[in-house]
Amino acid sequence: MKVTMLYSFLKADIEYIERELEQAISSSSPSLRDASLHLLQAGGKRIRPVFVLLAAKFGDYRIERVKNVAVALELIHMASLVHDDVIDNAKLRRGQPTVKAEWDNRMAMYTGDYIFARALEYMTDIENAEAHRILSNTMVELCIGEINQIKDKYQYSQNLRDYLRRIKRKTAILMAASCQLGALAADVPDGLHQKFYQFGYNVGMAFQITDDILDFTATEKELGKPAGSDLLQGNVTLPALYALEDERLREQIMQVGEHTTKQEMAEIIHQMKRSDVLDRSRALSQRYLRKALVILDELPSNRTKKSLRDIAKFVGKRKY
Amino acid sequence: MKVTMLYSFLKADIEYIERELEQAISSSSPSLRDASLHLLQAGGKRIRPVFVLLAAKFGDYRIERVKNVAVALELIHMASLVHDDVIDNAKLRRGQPTVKAEWDNRMAMYTGDYIFARALEYMTDIENAEAHRILSNTMVELCIGEINQIKDKYQYSQNLRDYLRRIKRKTAILMAASCQLGALAADVPDGLHQKFYQFGYNVGMAFQITDDILDFTATEKELGKPAGSDLLQGNVTLPALYALEDERLREQIMQVGEHTTKQEMAEIIHQMKRSDVLDRSRALSQRYLRKALVILDELPSNRTKKSLRDIAKFVGKRKY
Repeated sequence: MKVTMLYSFLKADIEYIERELEQAISSSSPSLRDASLHLLQAGGKRIRPVFVLLAAKFGDYRIERVKNVAVALELIHMASLVHDDVIDNAKLRRGQPTVKAEWDNRMAMYTGDYIFARALEYMTDIENAEAHRILSNTMVELCIGEINQIKDKYQYSQNLRDYLRRIKRKTAILMAASCQLGALAADVPDGLHQKFYQFGYNVGMAFQITDDILDFTATEKELGKPAGSDLLQGNVTLPALYALEDERLREQIMQVGEHTTKQEMAEIIHQMKRSDVLDRSRALSQRYLRKALVILDELPSNRTKKSLRDIAKFVGKRKY
Repeated sequence: MKVTMLYSFLKADIEYIERELEQAISSSSPSLRDASLHLLQAGGKRIRPVFVLLAAKFGDYRIERVKNVAVALELIHMASLVHDDVIDNAKLRRGQPTVKAEWDNRMAMYTGDYIFARALEYMTDIENAEAHRILSNTMVELCIGEINQIKDKYQYSQNLRDYLRRIKRKTAILMAASCQLGALAADVPDGLHQKFYQFGYNVGMAFQITDDILDFTATEKELGKPAGSDLLQGNVTLPALYALEDERLREQIMQVGEHTTKQEMAEIIHQMKRSDVLDRSRALSQRYLRKALVILDELPSNRTKKSLRDIAKFVGKRKY
């Protein structure tokens, strides 16, 4: 099942946002436009705009108002992907050559800055200081998360808390803010905003853990990059963290680096699959999803609620 | 004369902003804090906060409100300096080792992102959509300016318009926004906002042209980097642009690159000083300053006006 089928009743609005995104990153500078459009066309699940729209459906849903928040949040996500490419030296993302591969790092950095700034432009239509506070806070946390990710690279003595705090900042907070800001932009009663935040946060945590599992279990074709890429880049994710508890795996993992061959990585992944580290990782992801579903139960019942539930469940099952 | 003497009556408020800046970039992440504080301690003229405060003096001056704008604008300036260091491969800025030299590029990029995000946090207290629109617009233009600066490197067929458009985006717009936002934050009558913008814009243009002249005329000690650095990095500034009109100088300038020795650069600068290119550059800078002073005449008369006039004059005369 495709994730887009889960919110088919939003199809027209999602397409509208897609066009807005395209317009947002069009600029008078041709080279900038090309770099950004390229990124846009590489696609993505647009989960953040979908969260904004679905949360807004619990209030006074007006697409003209809500779209600004949806576009802004997806642009912030895109900008962070562009900067990640500068950082991670990733050769490929979503199977497409990265902005970095086609342009040099300098252009990529300013393209990211530009997309950030465009996101802010979209937010200016929202006259609500609380919304701006949430967004700027989210961006501060995102940056701290990125910096910690660099600092924590190849640090094999880090613990579960370090990992969870990192993915919270890197992924979960932006999804939490998407839900919260969608609710806020549609004047959903104040008392519910925190629940939307919590729902997005828990789905986000599960989403990132699943991502980190798939980095080991999916194929290179599905990932658009070699399996085990996180490990190759020194990112100690949840499965790796669990694997470090095993003496033999620990030794192998700590030797992974740029020199590691595909076969060596395949062997490590093979052993991880034979151990319980992936199941334990899935179990933690499921725990976050269950929390998300419990929170969902506390929200008013409507058609939209089912979509949110389906998305939460999909996040736990997705294979790519 | 020191520029700080021009606004001594703001001393207490400027010091207050200095402490706020320090607090703004303090974070729970020690490495991030060190990198940012380092930048803060390297100093700077704090011209943007000063413009904010001086413009605000024409209205209902309340430091608690105005300080948020002043801090935000200086943080945006600082963030762009950090990203410039990643970009320019500059070894030194203001005589201090750059963030880049002490940390690697990756940390510098995210430190810049972090400072940007902190700037936005400061702005959230300003409940005025127009202020947010001006700021986000300024940031978009800044980014386009940076991207064009990369694209225009070593492009010796560019013309005066390319250069002016670039420094407008790179420098003048942020100074213009500082004046405009200071006026806006202090409820200066709407009709005057554009004049403040125009004053900041013209001073900003003169400021950058002066900077570009000093890059050739000041000593390495004054600059904190070798004279002729712009040319060495392929940045075709106004004096270089005029020098390109001279056949002999053109040939020498087009051969400048990383291999160029200090003596070769000294010889080029010597010839530029003997020609009229520096005087012509100064004349253009003066033209912008005269425009700024004409605009200033149209503003209400008060003690602050004299400070703005002194700063404008100082910009044209400064030797470092």
